[in-house]
Amino acid sequence: MAIHYPNGKKYEKQPQPNHSQQKKISFSNRGMTFEEDINDSNAYYLAQKIAVIHKKPTPLQIVKVDYPTRSAAVIKEAYFRQPSTTDYNGVYEGKHIDFEAKETKNKTSFPLKNFHDHQINHMKQVIDQKGICFVLLRFTTTDEVFLLDATHLILFYKQQQTSRKSIPKKEIEKLGHIVTVGYHPRVDYLKVVHDVYF
Amino acid sequence: MAIHYPNGKKYEKQPQPNHSQQKKISFSNRGMTFEEDINDSNAYYLAQKIAVIHKKPTPLQIVKVDYPTRSAAVIKEAYFRQPSTTDYNGVYEGKHIDFEAKETKNKTSFPLKNFHDHQINHMKQVIDQKGICFVLLRFTTTDEVFLLDATHLILFYKQQQTSRKSIPKKEIEKLGHIVTVGYHPRVDYLKVVHDVYF
Repeated sequence: MAIHYPNGKKYEKQPQPNHSQQKKISFSNRGMTFEEDINDSNAYYLAQKIAVIHKKPTPLQIVKVDYPTRSAAVIKEAYFRQPSTTDYNGVYEGKHIDFEAKETKNKTSFPLKNFHDHQINHMKQVIDQKGICFVLLRFTTTDEVFLLDATHLILFYKQQQTSRKSIPKKEIEKLGHIVTVGYHPRVDYLKVVHDVYF
Repeated sequence: MAIHYPNGKKYEKQPQPNHSQQKKISFSNRGMTFEEDINDSNAYYLAQKIAVIHKKPTPLQIVKVDYPTRSAAVIKEAYFRQPSTTDYNGVYEGKHIDFEAKETKNKTSFPLKNFHDHQINHMKQVIDQKGICFVLLRFTTTDEVFLLDATHLILFYKQQQTSRKSIPKKEIEKLGHIVTVGYHPRVDYLKVVHDVYF
């Protein structure tokens, strides 16, 4: 039976984390997702006037909007759209910074299914415009983060039709750069950007 | 009486443009909004490999998502959020480009209410990081577009508490740069960017 609150909203039971899930969250990456770590690092860079880098909002296709009052608009129907660019961009020392951050539970390789054609095309375009473009790849089991220049990713991505569908971790270690994972900032990728690109 | 289609969706009459509105749309700016003109120009720059500049998606606060099937997610409740940055950014010749585009029906000045604190703060931050930051200001009655460096806008914005709440057009003509409005691209602001900042 559906229970209705006085406000007319249908009651929906919220999923409650069970004990094992809580435990898992607490010990893996301090309860933060990789995205939250990056956002936190960007907030640190912004506050310290080191760089201005933001995550782009998720693109949505808005279909129906209600205006219950003059000032408030409520979106009643919308759909997620495939992003046509990378998630993060901004400016550091006048240079355009553009990147995507992804993580995997795999231990020995990074699956290329984490990326799609639109993003890869966008990365090519940014490189052609002399922008700084890379991916941050996190191996969750070891909490290791690597910065890999987008040129390498593009090459692996192109080769996947004839070759393997993931990038071996050994290749990432060789071609990429390890990023320090700490507290302030959590993922200090700009230090690597500075060393590699400046 | 509410008419229900077989799909269960409430029938909603779509607003039909009346003749005077159609006329207005057809003759003013060739039926395109300023935003569409800018997006079209950015598409041109992208196709011609001149620059990679995109409009950021509108930030939304998603409250409720339904999953009618395994693959499709329908957002059933969401709200518009105030953007914390400018609408457009990207890369041109390695440099970070960041701007906002606004239009007014006023003839002699540009109202500062078109901008808000968050955007102005963001512009300051971008300038501090040596990014190229400006606003494109369109006077709709004359279809004139000006590029005004963000430093000028920030100054006028700050002064509005003690001084006037709009920027006189004469000041924009003096401090800004006229942008050619044409067909390919519709608003060739990058030509001005190149002349002014490079």
